[in-house]
Amino acid sequence: MTTASTYERLASRFRLIATIGECSSMLGWDASAVMPPGGGGGRGDQLAVLAVLQHQHLTAPEIEADLAAAETSDPWEAANLRLMRHAYTRANALPPDLVEAQAKANSDCEKVWRVARKNSDFGLVRPYLTEVLRLTREGAAALSDALGLSPYDALMDGHQQGIGADDVVPIFAAYEEFLSTVLPEVERYQAGQADPVRPVGPFPIAAQQALCRDLAQRLGLDFDHARLDQSAHPFSGGTPTDVRITTRYVEDDFTSAILAVVHETGHALYERGLPLAYARLPVGEAAGMAVHESQSLIVEMQAVRSDSFLGWLGGRLHETFGGAPESYRLENLGRLWRRVQRSTIRVDADELTYPAHVILRFRLERAMIAGDLTIADLPAAWNDGLCALLGVTPPNDAQGCLQDIHWYDGAFGYFPSYTLGAMAAAQLMQAARAQVPSIDEAFSRGDLSPLLAWLRIHVHGVGSRLDFNSILEQATGRKLDPTAFQVHLRQRYLRVKG
Amino acid sequence: MTTASTYERLASRFRLIATIGECSSMLGWDASAVMPPGGGGGRGDQLAVLAVLQHQHLTAPEIEADLAAAETSDPWEAANLRLMRHAYTRANALPPDLVEAQAKANSDCEKVWRVARKNSDFGLVRPYLTEVLRLTREGAAALSDALGLSPYDALMDGHQQGIGADDVVPIFAAYEEFLSTVLPEVERYQAGQADPVRPVGPFPIAAQQALCRDLAQRLGLDFDHARLDQSAHPFSGGTPTDVRITTRYVEDDFTSAILAVVHETGHALYERGLPLAYARLPVGEAAGMAVHESQSLIVEMQAVRSDSFLGWLGGRLHETFGGAPESYRLENLGRLWRRVQRSTIRVDADELTYPAHVILRFRLERAMIAGDLTIADLPAAWNDGLCALLGVTPPNDAQGCLQDIHWYDGAFGYFPSYTLGAMAAAQLMQAARAQVPSIDEAFSRGDLSPLLAWLRIHVHGVGSRLDFNSILEQATGRKLDPTAFQVHLRQRYLRVKG
Repeated sequence: MTTASTYERLASRFRLIATIGECSSMLGWDASAVMPPGGGGGRGDQLAVLAVLQHQHLTAPEIEADLAAAETSDPWEAANLRLMRHAYTRANALPPDLVEAQAKANSDCEKVWRVARKNSDFGLVRPYLTEVLRLTREGAAALSDALGLSPYDALMDGHQQGIGADDVVPIFAAYEEFLSTVLPEVERYQAGQADPVRPVGPFPIAAQQALCRDLAQRLGLDFDHARLDQSAHPFSGGTPTDVRITTRYVEDDFTSAILAVVHETGHALYERGLPLAYARLPVGEAAGMAVHESQSLIVEMQAVRSDSFLGWLGGRLHETFGGAPESYRLENLGRLWRRVQRSTIRVDADELTYPAHVILRFRLERAMIAGDLTIADLPAAWNDGLCALLGVTPPNDAQGCLQDIHWYDGAFGYFPSYTLGAMAAAQLMQAARAQVPSIDEAFSRGDLSPLLAWLRIHVHGVGSRLDFNSILEQATGRKLDPTAFQVHLRQRYLRVKG
Repeated sequence: MTTASTYERLASRFRLIATIGECSSMLGWDASAVMPPGGGGGRGDQLAVLAVLQHQHLTAPEIEADLAAAETSDPWEAANLRLMRHAYTRANALPPDLVEAQAKANSDCEKVWRVARKNSDFGLVRPYLTEVLRLTREGAAALSDALGLSPYDALMDGHQQGIGADDVVPIFAAYEEFLSTVLPEVERYQAGQADPVRPVGPFPIAAQQALCRDLAQRLGLDFDHARLDQSAHPFSGGTPTDVRITTRYVEDDFTSAILAVVHETGHALYERGLPLAYARLPVGEAAGMAVHESQSLIVEMQAVRSDSFLGWLGGRLHETFGGAPESYRLENLGRLWRRVQRSTIRVDADELTYPAHVILRFRLERAMIAGDLTIADLPAAWNDGLCALLGVTPPNDAQGCLQDIHWYDGAFGYFPSYTLGAMAAAQLMQAARAQVPSIDEAFSRGDLSPLLAWLRIHVHGVGSRLDFNSILEQATGRKLDPTAFQVHLRQRYLRVKG
């Protein structure tokens, strides 16, 4: 047996595993976008069976010898083998009993959390979350041994490879300090400006839908390989050749529909730009959740909310919905869609204060994984932490530690991705603007293509050949450098020139 | 290991296989109803992987000993074991190389057929169909050995168990004779009637959609467990707890949309009524394609096109679309939707002449499987056969032997199911009317529920515990008796009292 065929045998197996994953992904889209409610029970079973089949193929005994024997001098194949070994190690690190116990505990906890959040009753979900944390810590310890990472980093690694808590701690500390001086400045600056005027509806859903579709297409999404639908929570799913994005519509405001479409289009464009030659192989996949978030945010925050793009978009909005032209002018749209406001809810937060919500969760979850914070102490720690970071205190746990699904569904180590992505987006945008001078002029015509062409080369087409920091290094000349984000925020919110 | 656990081990495996099948079914719906065109390649791979996984689990070596050892005194479990053994025998009868070669040949042939039909160029697809037939005959021979059935019956068995060519031959011969006297009579009778008046549109698609949904619901479809969408060709798919039916809409005629919905609702109601306690087990599945067709046709042909239901439906149509009330009256709607006309196209055929199209195909495919008819001779044999049965000759092969996808996709032995289903529907309706006197009175209020309640007990809830003829025997007191269909046709088309 030659080395080449060993590699090819592994590649076939991983393509099979990825193809099963595509089935799950499509069925997940279906469940959120179109499935009738009575299909839920059956769908859960279908997804569980697919997960088991994937896991069986990833832990098959035949893999191990192939992974040990395979060799290659090709850098893509070498990265592919590295990622295969990594996936194999992760899949085999956890005893099957633990995986099953986690799946059950997470599912039970998530169901109770929905009720607990509705009634703002943390006590109701406390025993369930305690069990989720216990099993998560057990899993983190096993992964830690297998990967040679700290337990928390082993969890982070499941969402984003190539960056750990030691990198994040100083970055977040610096941001906290930055925020403590810049947030009051921005509030003073904003107080000196006119209040934004909200365009007056109703804004017919059909017109919003047509506009959203047109906008996604204009940003570069090809509807021969994509769909746009509605769901309770916007998301991007599907597969690289058939991406499915969703948004939600309300008749009295088009903001949420449009900004969600723009955000999800960023995710979708990344998937569409992954290297086709390595489709369904680990090296051909997206490089992690922080990189993914950088691609949604570079479209939503960096491109679409820029002065040049917003100026164009205001005209399109006015064409579509009519009404007073003033409310669609750049000045007003900017004040409306770039308003800074301290709040208790992460998903409603503006670009400047959003990282504070992430920093809070990062610190709390690290302490929980380390065993330094118990679930019983979580609500108070949450409220104290948010007050220290933003000076606001949640009126109840529903608007405090019950607001996000992540922990209740067993997702620890995910939160940093949001802010790492936001920072990476600013750094990538800075580099792209320096390398491609036509970017902003194109934005002012509603045209993303110069930026997209640059991202195709420097991010999308890289797949997972490089990790988070290496992608940034290759694209921008340096690892994650949070000052680009600070420069961006000062420019946008204080009108300070870079 | 006790017998009970052997049975339970088998049941778990078959539930897993069925759950993978549910994934395929949902992805098949997606491909036909909502998938963007660029998703086709990936979807083909996904469905192929799921088929391989199903096959692997069905042919796993561990199954054989369990199937040999398992015992039970429960009649449902006994039927389940019989069906498991049958499925195992079928799956293992074909060498994997042959299965793969068939999948490829069928897929290649089907693609070429689309072009050949469009250009009416049989020569183009002839070599592909020759190869499909060669492999089908090879498979039929292998299945014949394994099942102890004739090669043609072994193919029929793949679509409908419990009935074979020896049963079908005399039934079809009798129908041919019946048709030769009754068709001219009906034509004379029809000639003495006024021509139907076609309601004048346009009929807005949105109004058609709302009406179709309402109608499906009224027939008993629960949209908590169902969807109604559009597709190029109407079908019923999904799973028993999440059925997906489709139809197609044209603005100048509501007929095709409504009758397709009614037909597919019949299929969907069957799936919804299968025995929940045996969900995902062979005994809990539909009893075959002839039984399935009997359930779509009992709703479409027996119930909805009855005088009592049509009388009610005409009122609803007039309410929905307005216009001249005369065209919606029973007399006119009956003449419009129950018009007999000799034609060359099966899917456009009326209830009376439809079986002639099936008889033609049954005879030709039997001869092809037996080696008595070559592909080269197929077009002429088709045209001669249709002329002998109906006195019409296709103007070209597109409207002749190229019209149906079945053979070109490797489906031999399927066609008889259509007419066996139509006959079974008439027989079931006759029995239901005798046992439940309120059925027609309910139809006249647009209410299917007394009939549905009867079908739930006598057909749907039986699952596959009984085969085609045993279901009929249990429900009507006798095996398939084609005279019920003849009585129905004389009543409907000649106004002869039963």
